[in-house]
Amino acid sequence: MTEEAPGHLYPAKRLEAFGAGALAALGLPEKDAALCAARMIDADLRGVDTHGIFRLNHYSQRIKAGGINLHPRVHTVRENAVTALVDGDNGMGHVVMNFATELAIRKAAESGLAWIGTFNGNHAGAGAVYSMMPLAHDMVGMYMTVANANHMAPWGGVELILGTNPISVAIPAGEEPPVVLDIATTVTSYGKVKLAAQKGEAIPVGWMIDRKGQPLTDPRRSSDGFLLPIGGYKGYGLNVIIGMLAGVLNGAAFGRNVVDFNKDVVSRNNSGHMIMAMRVDNFQPVESFKQEMDRVIREIRASKRMEGVDRIWLPGEIEHYRIRERLKNGIPLASIVVSNLRQLAAELNLSDRLE
Amino acid sequence: MTEEAPGHLYPAKRLEAFGAGALAALGLPEKDAALCAARMIDADLRGVDTHGIFRLNHYSQRIKAGGINLHPRVHTVRENAVTALVDGDNGMGHVVMNFATELAIRKAAESGLAWIGTFNGNHAGAGAVYSMMPLAHDMVGMYMTVANANHMAPWGGVELILGTNPISVAIPAGEEPPVVLDIATTVTSYGKVKLAAQKGEAIPVGWMIDRKGQPLTDPRRSSDGFLLPIGGYKGYGLNVIIGMLAGVLNGAAFGRNVVDFNKDVVSRNNSGHMIMAMRVDNFQPVESFKQEMDRVIREIRASKRMEGVDRIWLPGEIEHYRIRERLKNGIPLASIVVSNLRQLAAELNLSDRLE
Repeated sequence: MTEEAPGHLYPAKRLEAFGAGALAALGLPEKDAALCAARMIDADLRGVDTHGIFRLNHYSQRIKAGGINLHPRVHTVRENAVTALVDGDNGMGHVVMNFATELAIRKAAESGLAWIGTFNGNHAGAGAVYSMMPLAHDMVGMYMTVANANHMAPWGGVELILGTNPISVAIPAGEEPPVVLDIATTVTSYGKVKLAAQKGEAIPVGWMIDRKGQPLTDPRRSSDGFLLPIGGYKGYGLNVIIGMLAGVLNGAAFGRNVVDFNKDVVSRNNSGHMIMAMRVDNFQPVESFKQEMDRVIREIRASKRMEGVDRIWLPGEIEHYRIRERLKNGIPLASIVVSNLRQLAAELNLSDRLE
Repeated sequence: MTEEAPGHLYPAKRLEAFGAGALAALGLPEKDAALCAARMIDADLRGVDTHGIFRLNHYSQRIKAGGINLHPRVHTVRENAVTALVDGDNGMGHVVMNFATELAIRKAAESGLAWIGTFNGNHAGAGAVYSMMPLAHDMVGMYMTVANANHMAPWGGVELILGTNPISVAIPAGEEPPVVLDIATTVTSYGKVKLAAQKGEAIPVGWMIDRKGQPLTDPRRSSDGFLLPIGGYKGYGLNVIIGMLAGVLNGAAFGRNVVDFNKDVVSRNNSGHMIMAMRVDNFQPVESFKQEMDRVIREIRASKRMEGVDRIWLPGEIEHYRIRERLKNGIPLASIVVSNLRQLAAELNLSDRLE
């Protein structure tokens, strides 16, 4: 869970308008600026604070450096009734993935199932934002991507040639919240390690190892080591498979040709993503499927808990309630994030300075 | 890796014929008996010794007890060009999954992509056996199933209502072996815990915890605790998602309604599986895709290794070489397995007693 850091609270709609205004001032067409901002705020509402408006300054850097095509021709280069390969033309990742996900939903609505791959894209924010779009159509969604920086080594290796390659799967339910998995295949993110370093705290054994395979617990030494995959060789395998399905299959970057988007804001990322949408009524009538989902969800939640555990959560349930809470009370932003956004607003001479 | 326990070596074809003979003597039609035996030996050749001929005594128990329909009408109950729901009619799992996988390949050959769900099935052996069948058609394969016994609790819970729910994904390559992931979503299997108990050895911290959340390292106490998921809450989430996609979506068992096939050999399992097949030429020309897979595989393998590590393995690569080795030298069976199979041969009055 992301901690609710003490900070300023902003209404979601205000942050979305701010983001759209900033991206438009940076040169994005208004429609694309609005769309990117909406997908970013979707992440903030879920509590994936590292993948929302927090990224605006970084996106701005890349746009100013010419690392993003502001007027991409996002288009399919191969297509049949149930699959497509989409060329993102180096546009904003959110624009490319929104296009791909809407295409997946349209094809799945007609044919029952669709798998869309993309290349020539960029960082698109939180995976669940896309895997969840099919839910409203009574479809399962699945999303994978190749991460935009390599902080992991192959199992037994010491070279950083793999990323946190995440997977997200969303399954509709009835009265219960949808079940939404959204995980990196590393035990933790590099962002959490950097945060611990800032706070002067040690990191737990199991997060990182050094080049000799020894546990690395001093986050200031993070450049001497690498993130560990979940489940050891199992997570390494899952990570590689995701890289191949979201990267290699789409002619996108994977391995050494991944551009570290933190260090290089100019070079084309050729970021690869995939999105699948599948109607549940291929298999079960929608209503009885949802009833059975509710039954299983309640069975898991109501099962006996460990001492000291208040509640058993289903995947995505915490985020479901956080969306409600944040829509009502606003999105908390840490002071450093607010200060960075204000600086951007000043640079771009926006009317809203988030004061 | 499964250890190559010292034991008798049998040619794969001999074991396959033995398995087919035993299953036919148990009442399976000859074609189904041969098919089940072939899928079991596929697992033994890969080194998944726990999912091959080792299971024959257990299958035999279930068949004798009337827990398997020997003459099932395996058929689709819902179908379109790219999906199908298959009723396994309580047949042998291998028969049901072979039917579903061949159907997936046929549909994907025509339409590019197919996802088949099954219910009313049984234990089908090793996942990679099915996820790899599409490889020969230049397709990606993906397989998931709900395990046939619950040895895991929800995250924060203490009730055993989840299984080891595995996933397998296979991706074709060119000159290199295909990349094949086949993992349970628990850190280890219950079988390995039982093996450690037999040997009187402790199990590592991280395999199991007890009902208070404390590490459980004495395998003789295994009934006081449960298996841990890979990556903590992440593996729990993946486990639940697999249960829903392979179980709930297909109207198959998941959660409390899973029958423990070790304890109950009579009740209908209603085991659920899914198989997906997808042509790589939806996205890339087959030859250039395979070349790029080879390049990425070699890049990972050739990357710098940790001290003391002889080789970096790709997912499924060890198993690839083990298949070659076992085809050449035979499949090693532990003495206890041989003795059980000989006993079965005597009971069934088979001509081959594996002497």
